[in-house]
Amino acid sequence: MENKSYSLNELAAHTGAAVVGDGETRVWGISSLEDAVKGQLSFVAHGRHLAAARKSKASCLLVSSHISKDLQGPQLVCDQVYLAVARLSRFFKEPPRLAPGIHPSALVDESAQLQEGVRLGALAQVGPHSRIGKNSRIYGGTYVGEHVHVGEDCLIYPNVTLMDHCFIGDRVIIHSGAVIGADGFGFAQDDAGRHIRIEQFGTVHIDDDAEIGANTTVDRAAFGRTWVQRGAKIDNLVMVAHNVTVGEDSILVGQVGISGSTTIGRHVVMAGQVGVAGHLTIGDRVRIGARSGVAHSIKPGLDVLGLPAQPQKEWFETMKHIRRLPRLRDEFKELKARIEELEKSLDREQR
Amino acid sequence: MENKSYSLNELAAHTGAAVVGDGETRVWGISSLEDAVKGQLSFVAHGRHLAAARKSKASCLLVSSHISKDLQGPQLVCDQVYLAVARLSRFFKEPPRLAPGIHPSALVDESAQLQEGVRLGALAQVGPHSRIGKNSRIYGGTYVGEHVHVGEDCLIYPNVTLMDHCFIGDRVIIHSGAVIGADGFGFAQDDAGRHIRIEQFGTVHIDDDAEIGANTTVDRAAFGRTWVQRGAKIDNLVMVAHNVTVGEDSILVGQVGISGSTTIGRHVVMAGQVGVAGHLTIGDRVRIGARSGVAHSIKPGLDVLGLPAQPQKEWFETMKHIRRLPRLRDEFKELKARIEELEKSLDREQR
Amino acid sequence: MENKSYSLNELAAHTGAAVVGDGETRVWGISSLEDAVKGQLSFVAHGRHLAAARKSKASCLLVSSHISKDLQGPQLVCDQVYLAVARLSRFFKEPPRLAPGIHPSALVDESAQLQEGVRLGALAQVGPHSRIGKNSRIYGGTYVGEHVHVGEDCLIYPNVTLMDHCFIGDRVIIHSGAVIGADGFGFAQDDAGRHIRIEQFGTVHIDDDAEIGANTTVDRAAFGRTWVQRGAKIDNLVMVAHNVTVGEDSILVGQVGISGSTTIGRHVVMAGQVGVAGHLTIGDRVRIGARSGVAHSIKPGLDVLGLPAQPQKEWFETMKHIRRLPRLRDEFKELKARIEELEKSLDREQR
Repeated sequence: MENKSYSLNELAAHTGAAVVGDGETRVWGISSLEDAVKGQLSFVAHGRHLAAARKSKASCLLVSSHISKDLQGPQLVCDQVYLAVARLSRFFKEPPRLAPGIHPSALVDESAQLQEGVRLGALAQVGPHSRIGKNSRIYGGTYVGEHVHVGEDCLIYPNVTLMDHCFIGDRVIIHSGAVIGADGFGFAQDDAGRHIRIEQFGTVHIDDDAEIGANTTVDRAAFGRTWVQRGAKIDNLVMVAHNVTVGEDSILVGQVGISGSTTIGRHVVMAGQVGVAGHLTIGDRVRIGARSGVAHSIKPGLDVLGLPAQPQKEWFETMKHIRRLPRLRDEFKELKARIEELEKSLDREQR
Repeated sequence: MENKSYSLNELAAHTGAAVVGDGETRVWGISSLEDAVKGQLSFVAHGRHLAAARKSKASCLLVSSHISKDLQGPQLVCDQVYLAVARLSRFFKEPPRLAPGIHPSALVDESAQLQEGVRLGALAQVGPHSRIGKNSRIYGGTYVGEHVHVGEDCLIYPNVTLMDHCFIGDRVIIHSGAVIGADGFGFAQDDAGRHIRIEQFGTVHIDDDAEIGANTTVDRAAFGRTWVQRGAKIDNLVMVAHNVTVGEDSILVGQVGISGSTTIGRHVVMAGQVGVAGHLTIGDRVRIGARSGVAHSIKPGLDVLGLPAQPQKEWFETMKHIRRLPRLRDEFKELKARIEELEKSLDREQR
Repeated sequence: MENKSYSLNELAAHTGAAVVGDGETRVWGISSLEDAVKGQLSFVAHGRHLAAARKSKASCLLVSSHISKDLQGPQLVCDQVYLAVARLSRFFKEPPRLAPGIHPSALVDESAQLQEGVRLGALAQVGPHSRIGKNSRIYGGTYVGEHVHVGEDCLIYPNVTLMDHCFIGDRVIIHSGAVIGADGFGFAQDDAGRHIRIEQFGTVHIDDDAEIGANTTVDRAAFGRTWVQRGAKIDNLVMVAHNVTVGEDSILVGQVGISGSTTIGRHVVMAGQVGVAGHLTIGDRVRIGARSGVAHSIKPGLDVLGLPAQPQKEWFETMKHIRRLPRLRDEFKELKARIEELEKSLDREQR
């Protein structure tokens, strides 16, 4: 997997990093301190990794400025190491290989529009009136229904399902097994207690630069749209129900579940396995701790935790009180004994 | 997407609604108050939506009888608005388009039986001795193993997997990515602590009118069957383990997990992310709140909540006590001070 | 489904069981006590199943030694009934049928290597430079990317996705819908709060005798590898994040989620819906109760439970105290009344 190589001077220009040592040093890859080989770049963000950094075979280290002086050899020095790693990582990684053009086994409806540079893998399907934007790649076995819009430079991995009338923006990444646009889960009960389907007429919109994880499901709206906004990142096995909005740059970590018609603001972070009830509003910049269950709307900027979720500080306070219960019980017994003692004393006196 | 249109008189006949205004008004679609355009029907169930209803461009409103007089224009008046919406929604929605007959790229074993009106999408597979009932549709990329029975009027969406010997009733809907009939998770440990597979000989039965969500898994039984009964509705990313029974008209919301050999009664509702241990019996009409963990069998008709799940009223009581802990602690300290005071007083007196 | 038949003497030799009755009795299948028919073997591990055992039509019973004398007819007597069931079950079950060789609709890159006895189902894909080991079966609709290694005697079920550069050992079973090697979920935030992807350069290794459940996802590492070790068994809808290690013979039950870079030891058992935070170490033989949330590393051999997870004994203690809160409150009020009484008495006396 040897890639194109870059000089440190070139890479510095893309990250705002300062070059220490020979700026013409060339690197062709990036790896961890332990795994890096000659010709690769590695990175050190914390002083606790200095020992590993000194032993690393990497040809250059991306280093936090406060530890730069503790290391030798060529460096790219910057303040935000992980951000620089992210920015440089794309230089060294191509998306999974896919031959240019349309694989002969792919099935494209004659009314579908494929723009310049589109690549379709083996056994991929594109339905009637769908449109795939410039340079987007749809890998093998993926199903695209009818009237689907896929923007430019998208990566739709193998075995994805994009149901009818969904809209996908530019530079969106959808991982394998994801299902976009299955029917929302809506029923009304008749007098016998049978569930009568409310047909789902809406769509799913996934805006530019969003990412959808493997085996995640984003259901279509009953009416209107389920909406994943620009730059939102959704991990694996997440459930986004009908008519939900996930705001710009928000993050839903693995196995999160969002119930119908809930609106999530911008820059929200939900850690793994969080559940959110329906018809709520989660404010901008809210952060929700792992495994929390959210039953009420949350004001912008709050950090919440627990089941039911409460402000993080209150949750820790509650936990402290719960952990103290055995001690409280003991102290309570002691107090009771002292009261009995007092009662006896008083009784003796009064006799 | 203009559909066939219906007069209000026709629609009233299917819902028991009363027509207010011109019964010959025709509508061709249904939408929310905000999105509805001329020619569409919309609906108002609560007084709080009256303002939106007055602004709506819908040509007719499906209205709860107690607010009918507050609105003008053609109406369908009824008592259960959502039920009426459900019943009428199917008039305005066709299942996703699928060309009649068998797509030339579909793979059907010569021993498989396809009844009249069956439609098979591109790259769908039907294995040996399987049988697809009248007018059922199997969309592109779906895999049907051998000796599978699919009933009449089913919708099996793209990229579903139906493993060997499963039985699917009539009018069943299975959403994309669902896996029906993977092996149950059963192992015995040997003396070295290695897990030896117990092969899974049973099947999965999904009865008439059931619905299975996207990326949900229903495992085959070790022996006998895993059984989803008539009218049960299962949402996305739900796990139904081997030998589970899900009773008639029960609902499992997104990301619920049911462990092996548990029996769920009729008209049970489990909210999102509930987990139920194995070998339990959940009675008819039990309702389990979101994110609850059920470790014991539950008697019919109970509403439970929490981790571990307990009767809802007790859970709220427990929560109240937990929230009061800081106050209890303060009151406790105050009492302690008063006791000390008493002890001192008594001590002084006795001196 | 009549299979090859075996004499009890033959079966006894594979389990260390003792034969009671005619060792030449032949059985061709195994089932539950209720479902077994003549010619099948069944099993009784507990005295509470004796009544069912007496009514069973099975031709032979696999019986725990302490209840053997309470039953009649041919028996295989042993100490660990479920282990014997597991060992014998494979005699009576073939993997799902798949015709020998490569289905004409399968797509195999010319640089891929298929060893002797490999079977590929309809519409299966094997990408460039991938290698499938002896007698492995890849069922219909499964996608194998490039440079993937699949060992010998594997079962890769329909609609699985194996992304580029993953390594699968021998005798591994991967159920439908599983996604192995999707990108790990790694981002760095820029100053505007946008999430910049950290490209994922690592791979996934799944070692011999591991099993991966339906719709489970195992993400590729950022650098290095995500590692499922020998004999680990993973159920459905589990999320294994990037750079996680799942130790030998460990079990992850349905809907478990493991965050990035956590290392799980050997013989660990995590019950359903457990969540584990990132960068932790879970010691060998740890057992984690259902729905627990693990926020800290756990020492070997501990049984933990709860949210946050704590040693099981402490958790039950905590729960006991929480359940007693209403009583504590009542006792507290009573004490308060007695103190008031004391104060009044003392007051009277001193007056």
